[in-house]
Amino acid sequence: MAGSDIPESNCDVLIVGAGPAGLMSATWMARCGIKARIVDKRGTKIFSGQADGLQCRSLEIFDSFGFADRVWKESNHMIEVSCINPGPDGRIRRSDRVPDTIPGVSRFQQVVLHQGRIERFFLDHLKKYSDITVERGVLPESLDIDASKIEDNDAYPITVKLRHLTDEEAMPAQSKSSDIADGLFRSNLAADDTDDLIRKSTGNEGNAEIVHAKYMIGCDGAHSWTRRQLGYEMQGEATDYIWGVLDIIPITNFPDIRMRCAIHSANSGSVMVIPRENGLVRLYIQLSEIRPDASGRADRSKITPDVIMKAAQKTMSPYKITYEYCDWWTAYQIGQRVGTNFDAHQRVFLAGDAVHTHSPKAGQGMNVSMQDAFNLGWKIGLVVNGVSPRSILKTYQSERRRIAQDLIAFDHRFSRLFSGRPAKDVTDEAGVSMEEFKAAFVKGNQFASGLSVDYGASMLVAKPGDSAEQGDGTDVGVAGAATNGSSARKVVGKQELATNIPLGMRFQSFQVVNQAGARPYPFQYWLMSDGRFRIVLFAGNMADEKQKERVRKFCAELEKPGSVIRRYTPPDRAIDSVIEILTLHSAKRVDVELLVDFPTILHPFDEKRGWDYDKVFVDDESYHEGFGDAYKNYGVDKERGCVVVVRPDQYVGYIGELEDVEDLEAYFAGVMIKDNAGLARTKVNRNVRETPSASMLDAAKAYTLDGPPPETNGGATEADGPASGSGAAVGTQ
Amino acid sequence: MAGSDIPESNCDVLIVGAGPAGLMSATWMARCGIKARIVDKRGTKIFSGQADGLQCRSLEIFDSFGFADRVWKESNHMIEVSCINPGPDGRIRRSDRVPDTIPGVSRFQQVVLHQGRIERFFLDHLKKYSDITVERGVLPESLDIDASKIEDNDAYPITVKLRHLTDEEAMPAQSKSSDIADGLFRSNLAADDTDDLIRKSTGNEGNAEIVHAKYMIGCDGAHSWTRRQLGYEMQGEATDYIWGVLDIIPITNFPDIRMRCAIHSANSGSVMVIPRENGLVRLYIQLSEIRPDASGRADRSKITPDVIMKAAQKTMSPYKITYEYCDWWTAYQIGQRVGTNFDAHQRVFLAGDAVHTHSPKAGQGMNVSMQDAFNLGWKIGLVVNGVSPRSILKTYQSERRRIAQDLIAFDHRFSRLFSGRPAKDVTDEAGVSMEEFKAAFVKGNQFASGLSVDYGASMLVAKPGDSAEQGDGTDVGVAGAATNGSSARKVVGKQELATNIPLGMRFQSFQVVNQAGARPYPFQYWLMSDGRFRIVLFAGNMADEKQKERVRKFCAELEKPGSVIRRYTPPDRAIDSVIEILTLHSAKRVDVELLVDFPTILHPFDEKRGWDYDKVFVDDESYHEGFGDAYKNYGVDKERGCVVVVRPDQYVGYIGELEDVEDLEAYFAGVMIKDNAGLARTKVNRNVRETPSASMLDAAKAYTLDGPPPETNGGATEADGPASGSGAAVGTQ
Repeated sequence: MAGSDIPESNCDVLIVGAGPAGLMSATWMARCGIKARIVDKRGTKIFSGQADGLQCRSLEIFDSFGFADRVWKESNHMIEVSCINPGPDGRIRRSDRVPDTIPGVSRFQQVVLHQGRIERFFLDHLKKYSDITVERGVLPESLDIDASKIEDNDAYPITVKLRHLTDEEAMPAQSKSSDIADGLFRSNLAADDTDDLIRKSTGNEGNAEIVHAKYMIGCDGAHSWTRRQLGYEMQGEATDYIWGVLDIIPITNFPDIRMRCAIHSANSGSVMVIPRENGLVRLYIQLSEIRPDASGRADRSKITPDVIMKAAQKTMSPYKITYEYCDWWTAYQIGQRVGTNFDAHQRVFLAGDAVHTHSPKAGQGMNVSMQDAFNLGWKIGLVVNGVSPRSILKTYQSERRRIAQDLIAFDHRFSRLFSGRPAKDVTDEAGVSMEEFKAAFVKGNQFASGLSVDYGASMLVAKPGDSAEQGDGTDVGVAGAATNGSSARKVVGKQELATNIPLGMRFQSFQVVNQAGARPYPFQYWLMSDGRFRIVLFAGNMADEKQKERVRKFCAELEKPGSVIRRYTPPDRAIDSVIEILTLHSAKRVDVELLVDFPTILHPFDEKRGWDYDKVFVDDESYHEGFGDAYKNYGVDKERGCVVVVRPDQYVGYIGELEDVEDLEAYFAGVMIKDNAGLARTKVNRNVRETPSASMLDAAKAYTLDGPPPETNGGATEADGPASGSGAAVGTQ
Repeated sequence: MAGSDIPESNCDVLIVGAGPAGLMSATWMARCGIKARIVDKRGTKIFSGQADGLQCRSLEIFDSFGFADRVWKESNHMIEVSCINPGPDGRIRRSDRVPDTIPGVSRFQQVVLHQGRIERFFLDHLKKYSDITVERGVLPESLDIDASKIEDNDAYPITVKLRHLTDEEAMPAQSKSSDIADGLFRSNLAADDTDDLIRKSTGNEGNAEIVHAKYMIGCDGAHSWTRRQLGYEMQGEATDYIWGVLDIIPITNFPDIRMRCAIHSANSGSVMVIPRENGLVRLYIQLSEIRPDASGRADRSKITPDVIMKAAQKTMSPYKITYEYCDWWTAYQIGQRVGTNFDAHQRVFLAGDAVHTHSPKAGQGMNVSMQDAFNLGWKIGLVVNGVSPRSILKTYQSERRRIAQDLIAFDHRFSRLFSGRPAKDVTDEAGVSMEEFKAAFVKGNQFASGLSVDYGASMLVAKPGDSAEQGDGTDVGVAGAATNGSSARKVVGKQELATNIPLGMRFQSFQVVNQAGARPYPFQYWLMSDGRFRIVLFAGNMADEKQKERVRKFCAELEKPGSVIRRYTPPDRAIDSVIEILTLHSAKRVDVELLVDFPTILHPFDEKRGWDYDKVFVDDESYHEGFGDAYKNYGVDKERGCVVVVRPDQYVGYIGELEDVEDLEAYFAGVMIKDNAGLARTKVNRNVRETPSASMLDAAKAYTLDGPPPETNGGATEADGPASGSGAAVGTQ
């Protein structure tokens, strides 16, 4: 289909759109070592405004990549919400204070920081871990999928023609109504310019290229060009509610301007106050006087910062508010829609605004979009790398479309309650009950943390029940999934062994202490996003000989040649490169010794770097940061422990006894490919380790396991046999 | 004195040496807006090895500049110390575990990270806050001080001729004995090469320049060229103990390799183990078989990584240790020396190794050096900016030489105990008692935190007693200091009002909660290093009308035209630009309102940015991080409060009652210059604010203080008068 002079090339994954969803997708590709490209039609990244709210869960995800600290430092932390309602005299007053994040649900709290900074952190991370760079001013013009190649793992069934725009073409026109940066050109009040851009640049074939891709991810926003090529619909509708947004440094006597506030005035509309970084405050302001025209679209030329500010002043009266500095502004019309399909043939995927649009006020947009891509990216990465079968890709739609449906249902209810006039009394049926609003708000906060996500049964989540029912209807059961003729069968994890580690939900974090160095860590710190599945071995009381024997037996199973660990790890790769084992025991730290009491596979040996000291942890007191009480908090028996499988995205896949090795094997048989010689590029980044040779492993075991037992008083240490090292000469690296 | 063709220029402060002390000096200059230059004879920064230990206090200081988080993230945290001694059978075993940092002394713990990274963080910070860059390959050749200009604030009494080296000249020769980066060229086992460098580059006048400076800081290390020009001596002596240092990734069966260990073998010397970042471990190894020659200096050609490793293997036997990767190594001869003088005419200053040298094993070198410069930099900054009289510069020697003397005394004792052979029994008088060693080690840990520093009475520290006696003998009393004909007199702060805020020590941190936004902070977070003195107003119970009246009266005194705040702040500068007021009250957060209950001066108004929401804090519960219980922890009465003055370096200068305004004035009269029109450049960086006009302030007060009181149920809020804003048109910035 390409002209003979148009350059053609292959890439594994093509990502269209470099907003939060696109960048999250690219980040997974970087961490999984995938050859990927990411293009965006805009010539520059954004520098102000846009989305700003970040859920606890998004911060946990950033932390799993290693950059949550940058967000935590620069952002404003949202601590308390003020509910401001009219009193009996009609004048607004504070009626309630509620915590913005429910205490205890996460080690992070909701924060706000503008999208441009978040994108900056992603870009820095991409640079650190890959050579993937965002190609700006590039947009797709045509998409073809060769249906005959869909099931061929080595094929490139997708062909996309890309256009490289000039700098001028790639620069969006700002609104003419003010000098302040605005977001109207991205708003749903503006028409999409993609077709226009394509039309203008067509005819000059010098700016075109053809890309053949294995997979494609459309993160190209509410007007998604990718979605339109696939012919998928968005289901739902727009409302008549028009809202304006101002990012200002306010000059005001409103008392709660540094709190998040939901303000309902008696007859002058609603305002949401979001205190931001650097003294900024974002106001979401209902524009009651601007209505959509007959076509259902509002006239955006009538909307200016002045118009929006005046509406806010009316709502917030008798308090006064004005500003000298406005950083950004926009306006939008509330609508709630969900895409009918999230993928085509498990080859082309849609994420973010391309498959769900809703009100921005609940601070969900950027979060849910990133979390779509966080759910999808590692799955594509493992499939491209030959670790997992293509069947796991079906779980993307099953897991995420269900979340989008829940989100839209919530947003629909919340927007109506927030945009409505407060009821004067119980007989005022046209008005909104403020009690009902508060209840919805509190429920919304649970939803908005991102932590209530509970994925249904599938080959990736060993829990009881019907997978179609628990998801969006897609068939993601094990039977349909096990295409690799393995021992896969439906496994149901034993939830009762870890009552606070719910199957299908993210693995919560409690403080644990490193056995070798005594440093306390949030356990989640070690569940880093590098594409590895993890077996978390709750080893129980390692000071008890009977329990220690159970742990030894479990480890002996994992050490066997055909074990669940060895089967999926190529022989030339480190033993922890596909599935990592993390151990948490419950004896006193000083009563056990890492090298003596813990089987080798729990702290693998490496010829160049010695033992791995970062895999065995203890549920014990720390000197400076208290006691995590992790066994109790996880709901795991301190004596007997259990075995938990955590997916690469920190969601819980399986729970079993130490003896349930067959179940463990069956779980992995459903999600991994045996003898995956294709595995070549998964990058383990935070603690890279090389594979020890077999002889070194033997030598290592010899001096660890065969030595005399430690003295039980926890005092003296003992040498235990000959060293493995060969007295190697001084080397350099 | 300069040849007619040699370029000449002026700068306020010339810093010689870009190690930690030099970079800390430059950082203060950047934050105080001083025109400074920093030169270093080496052509590149260091990339590995050198110092690595960071005290709690150093981390607190980094945090005051805003980059402690980078260190905290990358470093290894030192949690526990193992004492390893010979048992009755002569074989080494663990005899004790002690916490490395005493729990509760700081919100940070001791960490290790190599000096190159620390220097990187300083360099990044300099770039962010100034145009100061390190001029590498530049060294001074001559120094002249014009004694007649010393007392003239506007003069440049110092003239230095600088040489710009070629790249080749500026590159130190590495040891020829191995390919691994080593630090021998910086070690005290190597001869200094400064004179050699000067000799080689002389004769080519094209590479010379003349700099005239007001002040100069010599941070040029143990061989300090600056010190030699001043003719000052180092007092003390070298010992016979030679130690080697290896930074390796160890391959070992030694059980505590990820703990800090002090290992005494029966007859094979001592080893200190310091676990480092990225799997590295630093070993300090006693080289018993290498002795100094007749000249007192050891032959460094005999020292190689192999020789050092073999000595370690002997000490650590029967455990085995080897390595494949060595990052850096060096060797040194223990000696303890202190400079006789730390300054010349309070114009040329010496800091760091230039005035104290000692063993590196206690992890003190980099810390004490940086803390010298941290003590000095703001003083020079305030003097150059015309805020403070030159007399405060005397306190540098008084405060820091005393610290150096204490350090050397400690190091002398500790080195002897660590280098000695363990006593076989109580009758073995030639041996070292392991009990005595442990006691010294624990005491050393207190010392090594950097938190025991207690500066003596001076114009900067209003405490009882004789200032000469409490310092190093330098006269730093108020009488000698008050050169500006002001109302300065000796003030003694009332320690009993704040029993855990010791005068002369650093202001400890407890958690407090922001009144306006409910976010918890360590209080120290707000004591940022920007050159400002701070009045910390412990406002007490602001829900009590009588106490509120006391606070109102105190603030009314500060509002007066000739007040301690207004007197030292130029009229065209923000009211908080020289002295900032931070308030901590003890009422419930929800029982008081910032804009209603707190006088204007505690949260100043600005025409462009509105009220300041970051100056008033409350000692109350937080939603997510517990209760700081700050009043109790600071030892301050919850009802009555008190007033504390904190110096720009976080050390406590004064404590008094809210009514002791005359004492407060007398304190500041001793350290500041009235009507300092010269103030032009002090940069307030973390929360820049402009000065409001008088009329705006009046309008602001009108709608804050004159409004109706808030409802006491902490529920409803009230509007309170007309707004100050003029309904300003949309502006951009």
